[in-house]
Amino acid sequence: MIVGMRAGATKIEIDDVIQRANSLGLQTQLNLGSDRTVIAILGSNTGRLSTDIFAVLPGVETVTRIMKPYKLAAHEFKEGSSIVSIGGVTIGGNGIVVIAGPCAVENETQLFAAADVVKKAGANILRGGAFKPRTSPFSFQGMEKAGLELLARAREKFGLPVVTEVVDSGDVKLVSQYADILQVGARNMQNFSLLKNVGKSKCPVILKRGLSSTVTEWLTAADYLLAEGNTQVILCERGIRTFEDTIRFSLDISSIPVVKKSSHLPIIVDPSHASGHYSLVPAIAKAAIAAGADGLLIEVHPNPKEALVDGLQSLTPSDFTRLMQELRPVAAAVGRCLV
Amino acid sequence: MIVGMRAGATKIEIDDVIQRANSLGLQTQLNLGSDRTVIAILGSNTGRLSTDIFAVLPGVETVTRIMKPYKLAAHEFKEGSSIVSIGGVTIGGNGIVVIAGPCAVENETQLFAAADVVKKAGANILRGGAFKPRTSPFSFQGMEKAGLELLARAREKFGLPVVTEVVDSGDVKLVSQYADILQVGARNMQNFSLLKNVGKSKCPVILKRGLSSTVTEWLTAADYLLAEGNTQVILCERGIRTFEDTIRFSLDISSIPVVKKSSHLPIIVDPSHASGHYSLVPAIAKAAIAAGADGLLIEVHPNPKEALVDGLQSLTPSDFTRLMQELRPVAAAVGRCLV
Amino acid sequence: MIVGMRAGATKIEIDDVIQRANSLGLQTQLNLGSDRTVIAILGSNTGRLSTDIFAVLPGVETVTRIMKPYKLAAHEFKEGSSIVSIGGVTIGGNGIVVIAGPCAVENETQLFAAADVVKKAGANILRGGAFKPRTSPFSFQGMEKAGLELLARAREKFGLPVVTEVVDSGDVKLVSQYADILQVGARNMQNFSLLKNVGKSKCPVILKRGLSSTVTEWLTAADYLLAEGNTQVILCERGIRTFEDTIRFSLDISSIPVVKKSSHLPIIVDPSHASGHYSLVPAIAKAAIAAGADGLLIEVHPNPKEALVDGLQSLTPSDFTRLMQELRPVAAAVGRCLV
Amino acid sequence: MIVGMRAGATKIEIDDVIQRANSLGLQTQLNLGSDRTVIAILGSNTGRLSTDIFAVLPGVETVTRIMKPYKLAAHEFKEGSSIVSIGGVTIGGNGIVVIAGPCAVENETQLFAAADVVKKAGANILRGGAFKPRTSPFSFQGMEKAGLELLARAREKFGLPVVTEVVDSGDVKLVSQYADILQVGARNMQNFSLLKNVGKSKCPVILKRGLSSTVTEWLTAADYLLAEGNTQVILCERGIRTFEDTIRFSLDISSIPVVKKSSHLPIIVDPSHASGHYSLVPAIAKAAIAAGADGLLIEVHPNPKEALVDGLQSLTPSDFTRLMQELRPVAAAVGRCLV
Repeated sequence: MIVGMRAGATKIEIDDVIQRANSLGLQTQLNLGSDRTVIAILGSNTGRLSTDIFAVLPGVETVTRIMKPYKLAAHEFKEGSSIVSIGGVTIGGNGIVVIAGPCAVENETQLFAAADVVKKAGANILRGGAFKPRTSPFSFQGMEKAGLELLARAREKFGLPVVTEVVDSGDVKLVSQYADILQVGARNMQNFSLLKNVGKSKCPVILKRGLSSTVTEWLTAADYLLAEGNTQVILCERGIRTFEDTIRFSLDISSIPVVKKSSHLPIIVDPSHASGHYSLVPAIAKAAIAAGADGLLIEVHPNPKEALVDGLQSLTPSDFTRLMQELRPVAAAVGRCLV
Repeated sequence: MIVGMRAGATKIEIDDVIQRANSLGLQTQLNLGSDRTVIAILGSNTGRLSTDIFAVLPGVETVTRIMKPYKLAAHEFKEGSSIVSIGGVTIGGNGIVVIAGPCAVENETQLFAAADVVKKAGANILRGGAFKPRTSPFSFQGMEKAGLELLARAREKFGLPVVTEVVDSGDVKLVSQYADILQVGARNMQNFSLLKNVGKSKCPVILKRGLSSTVTEWLTAADYLLAEGNTQVILCERGIRTFEDTIRFSLDISSIPVVKKSSHLPIIVDPSHASGHYSLVPAIAKAAIAAGADGLLIEVHPNPKEALVDGLQSLTPSDFTRLMQELRPVAAAVGRCLV
Repeated sequence: MIVGMRAGATKIEIDDVIQRANSLGLQTQLNLGSDRTVIAILGSNTGRLSTDIFAVLPGVETVTRIMKPYKLAAHEFKEGSSIVSIGGVTIGGNGIVVIAGPCAVENETQLFAAADVVKKAGANILRGGAFKPRTSPFSFQGMEKAGLELLARAREKFGLPVVTEVVDSGDVKLVSQYADILQVGARNMQNFSLLKNVGKSKCPVILKRGLSSTVTEWLTAADYLLAEGNTQVILCERGIRTFEDTIRFSLDISSIPVVKKSSHLPIIVDPSHASGHYSLVPAIAKAAIAAGADGLLIEVHPNPKEALVDGLQSLTPSDFTRLMQELRPVAAAVGRCLV
Repeated sequence: MIVGMRAGATKIEIDDVIQRANSLGLQTQLNLGSDRTVIAILGSNTGRLSTDIFAVLPGVETVTRIMKPYKLAAHEFKEGSSIVSIGGVTIGGNGIVVIAGPCAVENETQLFAAADVVKKAGANILRGGAFKPRTSPFSFQGMEKAGLELLARAREKFGLPVVTEVVDSGDVKLVSQYADILQVGARNMQNFSLLKNVGKSKCPVILKRGLSSTVTEWLTAADYLLAEGNTQVILCERGIRTFEDTIRFSLDISSIPVVKKSSHLPIIVDPSHASGHYSLVPAIAKAAIAAGADGLLIEVHPNPKEALVDGLQSLTPSDFTRLMQELRPVAAAVGRCLV
């Protein structure tokens, strides 16, 4: 951590900073610049300290981190790539995983039709929401436990592991009895109570990026899961909130190489929630693979016109089947393959 | 809801939209424009419908809401201003309420010193966090139940109602036994499970604006509380995430007149979390009052240099006392007074 | 245009809206909804009208566009794709064009070394800045006319068309004497005086997206060029300003399919300015091709360590040569090829 | 400037950084941290250097500025407050200046009616646009020279200095013959060619903040004006682009105390362009004064319903007269007065 003093800071103010550091067991080194003094705070754990500790002291103008605030998600903690294995499917290796299915589980017919389509088209994992976080209390809130049971039956019938969202820490136990992977949604990325409970469950988890979270905050949220001993963490980029109004969220394509550079965790991309419109899903899905993503999370509905939730962003069975065919050469072009 | 068809949409496509509307019990009216056809979907409940229902149909180019998605928080549902009463203090009337105290409850000495200062300076309600949502799992997470007990003792000793944050739906019962007002933090604004439980508790609640939530989403989140029968809802603007990097969050001053125009709920402002720096708090606090806010939520620490959390944004006792004196003439200038 | 009246709007207020429309030569149609009245303003030119004309009238609550504000850049004006031809190179067809070179022209040695590298690696057009828009007045501002002369000599020597930025409407004549393509930079996207002059020049032009401009505003800015009769317009996505702080700008990958859906103009991508860091350029470049971009604009410097401007985002010769090889299979995977 | 090396950086990499600094005439100081080495680059001019110079070197992970990139606008260059004097009106002292008038000069009747109203209500300076930067080429572009002549006649008749926008460096000479203050609009804040010419003119200037510019970039743009010897620079906050959609731009109220802390330049606020809606102007105007702004720039139209440009954000004569009365006690509450 680097503490920049104001021009004209007094010796007492400088000494105060040094004493504060020493009281925390940290060493310092002084740079007496021509214009202003800079104090380096040394120690391997300064990434965990709040910058406020020094910023609040008189005479201090700036405090800058050199260490990252996340630890366990960082390459400094673990080199290479973490690989998550779910029922024979691995995420984070050379293969590219496709997770597909409806936004919400609506009934057996709909879910089984979707599972059949995505299985035949080559998807590896089935998705479907039983607990739905909805912006308005007057919208459909999901089938809850009945939806989980349908998912479990679909898993058995189609031989696909299933992923579903958990929205409350009190539900983690229940949901993890049915799901192979828990999903923590974008609006819950900093619901730390939920993160701790999902971490304790040791169940594989997809951690969606918060819609206005920086990559650094996202990886620090992953530390909540990792700190509880859950190492099966998959990151999911799903678009961030910007001023652009022709799409629902702006997919941050750069987050893929940035995460690869900083972290050992696998990263997948959700082009459906990012764009909010089926016609934009194929271009974003191909871009994600080309940029190095480890997988995709795509919404598919047997009949989007009748979907209870998010029909506009769902692919039809034929659109999804065509997209799967188009993805194969893109994966090959970057030296990978759909698993 | 207004459905704009693509130029050249066929009669069959237009009829499909009309049939979809009719199947939902809604009437339509057609505008055969010179370039393209526009279909108005009529009915008093269209604000609750997803625009996707029509956007997904062939030949549709745009779907636009005329009705707002929130209902119970809107002026259309209740004219005038809702007033929330807590232990003799009213929020939402002509008086301006000041809620102050430390970010986190650290120990009895710190909390009581803070309570003493804010009481003497004229604050009406004491704040203090017992459960702390922290970006990193390695940061101080709050005193939890012991903190709640200290808050209850401070209430008794200083005669100030207390507000504290609840971060998990499983804790609502516990926290509402100690607190006069529950606070739902910015990162939990769309934790719908928490909102439902806080709504059911009927306990007065401060709903902070999500850091990338629109005013419309914020008022729709308030509908979750109101829909459970909890009418004691106070909104709190605390800054939104933007590109600006000299402050932590950009306080959206316009949200005050926008909320006043659209909703009957009282709105207060938190200049401490918005700015992240004590030196910016007074200017923002005065601006909030001048713009029409019903109150302020300000962090005060007996010794910010030693604060475990957010010391940089906390006012010292003398700074807070001076600010309270400066706020009085501003309140008077807009025809109000500190209560 | 759709005008939504407030609930309870009077007949006089409704008639005022109708009269205002009629006074502009526009027809209207009325929807007497159960809750509120909606008035459709009909006519093929309403996209050019400001919504304020109606929003300012008493009793009006919302005014919504159905028509887009841009005309000449829209698919409604011209179907298919516009193709821009520069010295035998075509942009906007099936081939993918690569424009490469240094950020700024520094001297003959540097420019010619860069031109040699990019030519050998297979780039089609040489870029280099002679007039540099710099954030600070104390930074290097470019070689100006001497830089243009070097670019012209490089064109002759290496047989590559050249593109360079023009920053002032007074310079358009000068720069177009030397350059094959004029570039309008992101910070000048809404310098309408410059756009008009570049439009009049009829010189092919790359219009970079403003760093906080929506796609709609960008296409409307293109209308300034097209309205002057300049049909050789190439759009360039170069990242937008967001809250994310691990990169300089967030490349909006979705803008590629959005532009393709809305406009006939070709679109290229600048991964160098978007990311600000050489290590992120390859992933973004591949993603852009996979998403359907018609070309790339990439910074290459013979020795980035010594670059006067933007060295960090420049590729070395060997990095660029390797990237060109990696791009070919990605282009093939989406049915295209590097030209 | 602080250069953080990657963990495990070699001695050669560290020496390269030191040599690069020395080659630029700068001293360095080394911190051999337990985990990684940090190098401080010392010298009073490092704020003018690009961080890329070091970031591009092998082994470097982060480069952080301690010095600000702006110099002449900074308090370090000039303490206290700069005061700009225009025809007897001073901006930047204890008094608060109100600049008011129509968005665009439309004709003599409209301009003189507006001037009469704002003069009588107590405004100090008349505003009116003759050259209008418009998003679409099909919108009214202003009366140009004829508009300037009307402004000059209004000045004579009503005894008010006039401010008008200049949009092209070729027009600076013309516009400064008529105007008392030149305005550089938000979309031209980084039109550096225009800034240089306005700087050379020595004419007082209002520099509006770019709609996605940080405060640091804004002050650095002011350096362009100051570097040409023009010291009569007034900053104008007019809202920034965010995701919020109930207003046109989000007024950054915090920029007022941030600018006051960092710079000696006066700052005024434009609530009309920020909000885009007349009903929000009074609240924002009062907030700006309470937060410490030195003045306001407000749009007033004798008949907003008939305005050619931005009618929705213009106050009527009676609304403006009432607002002026409401502003006086707010100014007094913060120890200032309307001049």
